[in-house]
Amino acid sequence: MEERTEISTLGEFGLIDHLTKNNETKNASTVLSVGDDAAVIDHFGRQTVVSTDLLLEGIHFDLMYTPLKHLGYKSVVANISDIYAMNATPTQIVISIGISNKFSVEALDEFYSGVYTACEKYNVDLVGGDTTTSQRGFVISITAIGEVAPDNFVKRDGAKVNDLICVSGDLGGAFLGLTILEREKKIFEETGAQPDLENRAYIVGRLLKPEARKDVIDYFAEQKIVPTSMMDISDGLSSEMMHICKQSNVGCVLYEDKLPLNEDSKNFAYKLELDPTACALSGGEDYELLFTISQADHKKIEQNNGLSIIGYITEAAAGKKFITRGGNTHDLVAQGWNHIK
Amino acid sequence: MEERTEISTLGEFGLIDHLTKNNETKNASTVLSVGDDAAVIDHFGRQTVVSTDLLLEGIHFDLMYTPLKHLGYKSVVANISDIYAMNATPTQIVISIGISNKFSVEALDEFYSGVYTACEKYNVDLVGGDTTTSQRGFVISITAIGEVAPDNFVKRDGAKVNDLICVSGDLGGAFLGLTILEREKKIFEETGAQPDLENRAYIVGRLLKPEARKDVIDYFAEQKIVPTSMMDISDGLSSEMMHICKQSNVGCVLYEDKLPLNEDSKNFAYKLELDPTACALSGGEDYELLFTISQADHKKIEQNNGLSIIGYITEAAAGKKFITRGGNTHDLVAQGWNHIK
Repeated sequence: MEERTEISTLGEFGLIDHLTKNNETKNASTVLSVGDDAAVIDHFGRQTVVSTDLLLEGIHFDLMYTPLKHLGYKSVVANISDIYAMNATPTQIVISIGISNKFSVEALDEFYSGVYTACEKYNVDLVGGDTTTSQRGFVISITAIGEVAPDNFVKRDGAKVNDLICVSGDLGGAFLGLTILEREKKIFEETGAQPDLENRAYIVGRLLKPEARKDVIDYFAEQKIVPTSMMDISDGLSSEMMHICKQSNVGCVLYEDKLPLNEDSKNFAYKLELDPTACALSGGEDYELLFTISQADHKKIEQNNGLSIIGYITEAAAGKKFITRGGNTHDLVAQGWNHIK
Repeated sequence: MEERTEISTLGEFGLIDHLTKNNETKNASTVLSVGDDAAVIDHFGRQTVVSTDLLLEGIHFDLMYTPLKHLGYKSVVANISDIYAMNATPTQIVISIGISNKFSVEALDEFYSGVYTACEKYNVDLVGGDTTTSQRGFVISITAIGEVAPDNFVKRDGAKVNDLICVSGDLGGAFLGLTILEREKKIFEETGAQPDLENRAYIVGRLLKPEARKDVIDYFAEQKIVPTSMMDISDGLSSEMMHICKQSNVGCVLYEDKLPLNEDSKNFAYKLELDPTACALSGGEDYELLFTISQADHKKIEQNNGLSIIGYITEAAAGKKFITRGGNTHDLVAQGWNHIK
């Protein structure tokens, strides 16, 4: 009998490891290949950074509560966020879409108006793509290209013992936005009641119209900070932290009381009887930056209100730890959004 | 009432024109944007070429008769064919896939073994991607990156009056391969009879395992030929010829008796009571190169048995003409594979 291994036994990251374990690079211009937010290609003086995302209706977005313009905007933002996470500047994107005949041209115009708005805001050129029919569901594939000064790119594997662990913005908002939209969708389906999103603008906005942290990369350049490792938070803080620890071969300590939470997010979490800390640790799609810096850069981070120091890097043998407000120490558990279930 | 325009009223290319009509580029490094086989990005001495394809199960391939290894191989080939069509050399690809849980790891391994085989053969590095669950159907998105000496790239808009129109290889085979596989699938579904593919290896191979014409690009370099325009034949000769005429603002004359046909393809076409010429004009997925050259390069093309001169470029006002074996003149009609129906 033929062997059959269920993909679920590997998980998304195990699957990627499995599929790329024999992958060897042949071109001298390939500086960095599979395994980070983006690949790096050498181009005669500067380096090119490439990242790609595939977004499927029903898996990554629900058109019932996602306006198409927001979806176009977010698709671009999510992808170029990976370029910023390499400490690089996005310059071009290509975008492919698969559409069923339920889509009208006006609907697509809405989607593209979001795409162009994001391109405008982040100074990125849309330079190509592919358009095709889909039998079912809207399919979006975006590849972003960016540039970075030679060897100025920041990977996930450079965190050193005693480095400080930092994040931009606040965490958990997008997850809470998703939670309320899913709840209102369910109520609508059951009772026909219109969604009650009063006072939920912040968390809903975090989900539907995220921004990429170009400003943080600009701040690094201005302050001459080069993080020792960095990635963007798309799957959730704890999951991303595990990636940095694994790839850098280090451990970490994170402090609950240092996690940046927004007041609106916190209040809504309590209302739903959710733990805001769990939302911050495991909620995805915030597109904030998680990075490590050497202690020498401590002051430069502290003086920026938009950045938080949430812990520090330890020896790998010390494990990955989370210290609660009450002073208890737990093992950090990755409960990120795992799209391969 | 809200306006609703059916996408079918625009067609694929009309839709792309519509969606990109206000697209402006902002980065100095963007040399060539939407509208050709690939985009061109300037990178300090050399230029980067980028192309992307989205392939959806049920639209672009049928897993009932497409072995996954072949699908992986073809997905890469189809994409890098666009890079060669720019007179450039592919160097890296990123590949994203969406998979349903009906896929096993072994099935994916088959797919990737085809991807890696193509990467090996064409000296291309797989440098990244995205992997996600799909609710239904296998989704493949590939973006290829290549390089070209400054301004050595060949677009679709450079054909000049009196240029010779040339194609590589032979045409119509992939369409005939598809026809026989669809026929055998139907017979199998109705009667359970195993497919009869005897003596059909050539045309089935043309569909399932096409090659990109790296050798032609190499020949151009060796012979110092720079085509005045070029594109790869994915939708069908007449459709691609119309693109070159439109973008170059010229007309053309094609000769039926000059179209390169393979003997096996021809015989099978007759057996099915199909016109081999129609297959050559309108059959897609041959991934041959269609290009124009100045008359000065006539001899260099003639001495290569793998290349055929099939006509010449005229003034736009003379129209797009097709001259049959019997000497009759018809208007050329684009009946390419239009994925937006």
